[in-house]
Amino acid sequence: MLQTDPCFLTAAEAAAAIKAGTLTSERLVRSCLERIAVRDADVKAWLHVDPAHAIRQARELDKRSPMGPLHGLPFGVKDIMDTADMPTTQNSAAYQGHRPTRDAACVAIVRHAGAVILGKTDTVEFAFNARKAASRNPYNLDHTPGGSSSGSGAAVGDYQVPFAFGTQTAGSHIRPASFNGIYALKPSWGTISREGVHLISVMLDTVGWYGRSVDDLTLAAQAFRLPGIDDSPTKSVADMKIGYCETPYWSRAEKGAQTAMTAAAERLRRAGASVEEIVLPAHFADLADAHSTIMFGEGRVAFYNEYLANGHVLHPELRKTVEGGRGATPERLVAAYDLADVCRKEFDAIAARYDAVLAPAATGEAPKGILNVGDWIFNGLWTLLHTPCVAIPAVRGDQGLPVGIQLVGPRLSDARLLAGARAVQHVIDVEAEERLRVLLAA
Amino acid sequence: MLQTDPCFLTAAEAAAAIKAGTLTSERLVRSCLERIAVRDADVKAWLHVDPAHAIRQARELDKRSPMGPLHGLPFGVKDIMDTADMPTTQNSAAYQGHRPTRDAACVAIVRHAGAVILGKTDTVEFAFNARKAASRNPYNLDHTPGGSSSGSGAAVGDYQVPFAFGTQTAGSHIRPASFNGIYALKPSWGTISREGVHLISVMLDTVGWYGRSVDDLTLAAQAFRLPGIDDSPTKSVADMKIGYCETPYWSRAEKGAQTAMTAAAERLRRAGASVEEIVLPAHFADLADAHSTIMFGEGRVAFYNEYLANGHVLHPELRKTVEGGRGATPERLVAAYDLADVCRKEFDAIAARYDAVLAPAATGEAPKGILNVGDWIFNGLWTLLHTPCVAIPAVRGDQGLPVGIQLVGPRLSDARLLAGARAVQHVIDVEAEERLRVLLAA
Repeated sequence: MLQTDPCFLTAAEAAAAIKAGTLTSERLVRSCLERIAVRDADVKAWLHVDPAHAIRQARELDKRSPMGPLHGLPFGVKDIMDTADMPTTQNSAAYQGHRPTRDAACVAIVRHAGAVILGKTDTVEFAFNARKAASRNPYNLDHTPGGSSSGSGAAVGDYQVPFAFGTQTAGSHIRPASFNGIYALKPSWGTISREGVHLISVMLDTVGWYGRSVDDLTLAAQAFRLPGIDDSPTKSVADMKIGYCETPYWSRAEKGAQTAMTAAAERLRRAGASVEEIVLPAHFADLADAHSTIMFGEGRVAFYNEYLANGHVLHPELRKTVEGGRGATPERLVAAYDLADVCRKEFDAIAARYDAVLAPAATGEAPKGILNVGDWIFNGLWTLLHTPCVAIPAVRGDQGLPVGIQLVGPRLSDARLLAGARAVQHVIDVEAEERLRVLLAA
Repeated sequence: MLQTDPCFLTAAEAAAAIKAGTLTSERLVRSCLERIAVRDADVKAWLHVDPAHAIRQARELDKRSPMGPLHGLPFGVKDIMDTADMPTTQNSAAYQGHRPTRDAACVAIVRHAGAVILGKTDTVEFAFNARKAASRNPYNLDHTPGGSSSGSGAAVGDYQVPFAFGTQTAGSHIRPASFNGIYALKPSWGTISREGVHLISVMLDTVGWYGRSVDDLTLAAQAFRLPGIDDSPTKSVADMKIGYCETPYWSRAEKGAQTAMTAAAERLRRAGASVEEIVLPAHFADLADAHSTIMFGEGRVAFYNEYLANGHVLHPELRKTVEGGRGATPERLVAAYDLADVCRKEFDAIAARYDAVLAPAATGEAPKGILNVGDWIFNGLWTLLHTPCVAIPAVRGDQGLPVGIQLVGPRLSDARLLAGARAVQHVIDVEAEERLRVLLAA
C-alpha cells in the first residue's frame, strides 16, 4: 500500500476531504479494508469484519447529506459493546454467537453522527483480567498492544481504522494508546452513556475512543456533545502552564516512561510553556489499593449472573472474583469510595491551576508476549478520580516501541483539556512521521 | 377468591410450604394468575403476562430439586428490565415490540434462584418522569400506585404476585411501597448489577424488590448474596436504638406521613426500643437540589441515543432533559457530587450509632389520579447517599390508603438493616390484617 492511501489519513483529515468532495466514504472504507486484509493475519485486531456490510454503510452515507461530525468515517467497536448488526462476543466462550438486538448507546450515537461501523475489535474477556485478546502490537508482533482494548488500540495504531472505541476500568484505554503510538480520550466519568457496554464497575467503567490526532478525538467528542466542546478556545503553548506529575507510583516507571515524561516536559519548556512539578498529597498513594478494592468489589456483583449461567466456561480469574471478591469487604469498599471522594476534590483544585497535568500513560514500552497486557498503575488513579485523560505519543523506547504520556484535567473539563492537548500535540509528538516509517517497515 | 388461596401467602410462607411439599409452584402460579384475571382490568399492573409460559416454568421447577431460596416463587419484573422470553417495552412508543436476547442480570439471578418470571409490570416511560403507567392503586382505583415502579407496587400490593422488582433513581421504589401497603428493599448502591436495566443515572439508579414481609425481602437478598445476609443476627426490639429522622424536608410531610412517623415511633417506644431524634447537619438540606442536578445531568447523557433515534416519539419531558440538561452545568454537577460525598460519610457515622434510622417513606397517601405519581422529596436524599432503605407499612390515612415508613442504615449495612427491620416489623405494621380486609372489600 502507498502512504497516500486514505487509510493513512487522520479522521480529521479524512472528514475534511469527504466534506470537500475529494474523498468518498466508500473509498476510505475500501482502503481500511485493504489494510486489514494485508495485516490482519499478523495483527489480529478484529473479531468481526464484514467488508460487504461496511461498504454498504459507506455507500449509503455517500448518497446522503452529512449526518454529523463523523460522516463517512470508519469506527471500530470494542467487542464488549452491543451492536445490532454484528455479533458481540465479549471474547468469552459464554457469548459465542451472541447477537444483541440493539446498539450500545455509544455505537448508536456515532452511527447517528455518520460513522461507518467497520467491525468489532478483540478484547480481554469482558474487558476484565481474563482471557486475553489474540491481538499483537503493530510495531512488533512479539509484543502486546496492551489491553483490555487490545484490538482497538492495535487497529488504530496500524492504520486499519481511524477511530475505535475502548473502555477503561483500570488502564484499559490509555495504556494501549501509549503502546500503539496513538491518541486517546478517556472522557470524564459519566459523560458517555455506558448502556449496552458490559459492566464491570459502575464507579469506574468509562467509554473512550482512539484517534491519530487531537482533532480526531475532538470530532468524536462533538458527536457526544461533551460540555463546552463546540466553543473551546484556541490555546498557545507559550501561554500554557503545565503541571508535571509523576504520581505516587513513579518508582514503577521503567526507562520508557521516564524518557517520555522527561522529553515531553523538555519539549514543552522549549516551546515556551511553564512546566511546574506537582507533588500529590501523601494519601494519593492509597488510591491504587482503593481502585482495586472497588474494581474487584463491584466486579464480584457485575459477573455474578454470568457466573451462575456459565461459570464453567468463564476464565478462572473471573470465577475467583465472583467467589471471593478479592478481599473487598463492605468496610474496605466504603473506605475506598471515601478516599476517592476526598482525592477527587483535592485533585480538581490542584489541576485547576494548570492548563493540563502531564502524567505517565504507562510504565514503559509494551511488554513482550500477549499474556501480559501491561501494568495499570499509572491509570487506575485517574479512572477512580473520574478525570478526563488525553493520551499523546511522545517517544520510542529502547525496543523501538512507542511510549506516550497523558494530559489530565479536573472532572468535566474535557473540552478545555482537548483544547490544551491540541496546542501541545505537535510539540510533544515530534516523531509521528518516523513512527509511520518504522511501522511500515515492520 | 378465598383468603386461603396461595396468592395471599407471603413469599416466605409460600417458600416454606413448597419446601414442606404442601404447595406446588404450579398451584401458587395458577392462584396468582387467577387473581390477575380477576383484577387486571381494574388495577392494570401488567404490560405482559403469558399464563401458559408462567405455568410451564412452574411445572419445570416442581419437577426438579430446589434451585435456590426463591424456588417456585413468582416474580414480577419492571418493564425497563430486559427479559429474554418476554417483550421489554420501557412503556415507551420507541420500544414497542422490543425483544431483548438476554435477561437483565437481576432477572437472571432470581431465575437461577428458582423464581418463576410471571410477567412484566407497567412503569413510567424509561422510569423517568415521562409517560405514566396505566396502573391504579389497588386500595382505591381513583388513586396512583406511585411511580415509576407503578405496576410492580400495585401487583404486590394487590396480592397478584409475592415479589416484584422496582428501581429507584429518585423515589421510584420506596414511595410506591408506601402507597400500596407493602414492603420494599432498596439495597445499597452498587450491590445489585444494573446490567440490562435501562439507564438514567449511573450515580443514582438502584435495583430493588417488593415483598409482603421482611422475610420476603431477605429471601431475595439471599439470592443476590448481599454481604452478611446469611448470618445476620436476630434482634430484639427492646434492645434496639432507633434514630428518628424527619429529614430537612419535614415541612413537605402531609398528615399521612406525620401520622405514620408518630405512630411508628410510639409503637417502637411502647415495645421497649429507645427512639432518639436525629437532626441532620444543615447542608443536608441541599441534597434535594444536588439529587436533581445529578439526575437531570446524567439523564441528559443517558437518553441522548434514544433522542437521536426516536426523539419524535419520546415524551416531551425526556426531550427537554436531553436538550437542556435542566441547568446541570459541569460546575453544578461537580458541586452536587462533592456535597453527596460529604453527606454520605457524615450520615454513615450518624447511622452507625443506631440499629436503624426511621424516616418518612413518602409525603403521605397516594395522590388522586394517575398523572401525579407522588413526591420524591423523602427518597432522593437516600438514593443519592447510597444507603439501604427498607419500607414497612405503618398506618392508613384519612382517605383509607396505606402509608409506610422507611428504615435507613449506613452504606452496605443491608443485612444488619434487614435484621433490624425483621425485629420491628410486627411492632410497626400492626394493621396488616385490616389492610387485607379493606383491600378485598375494595
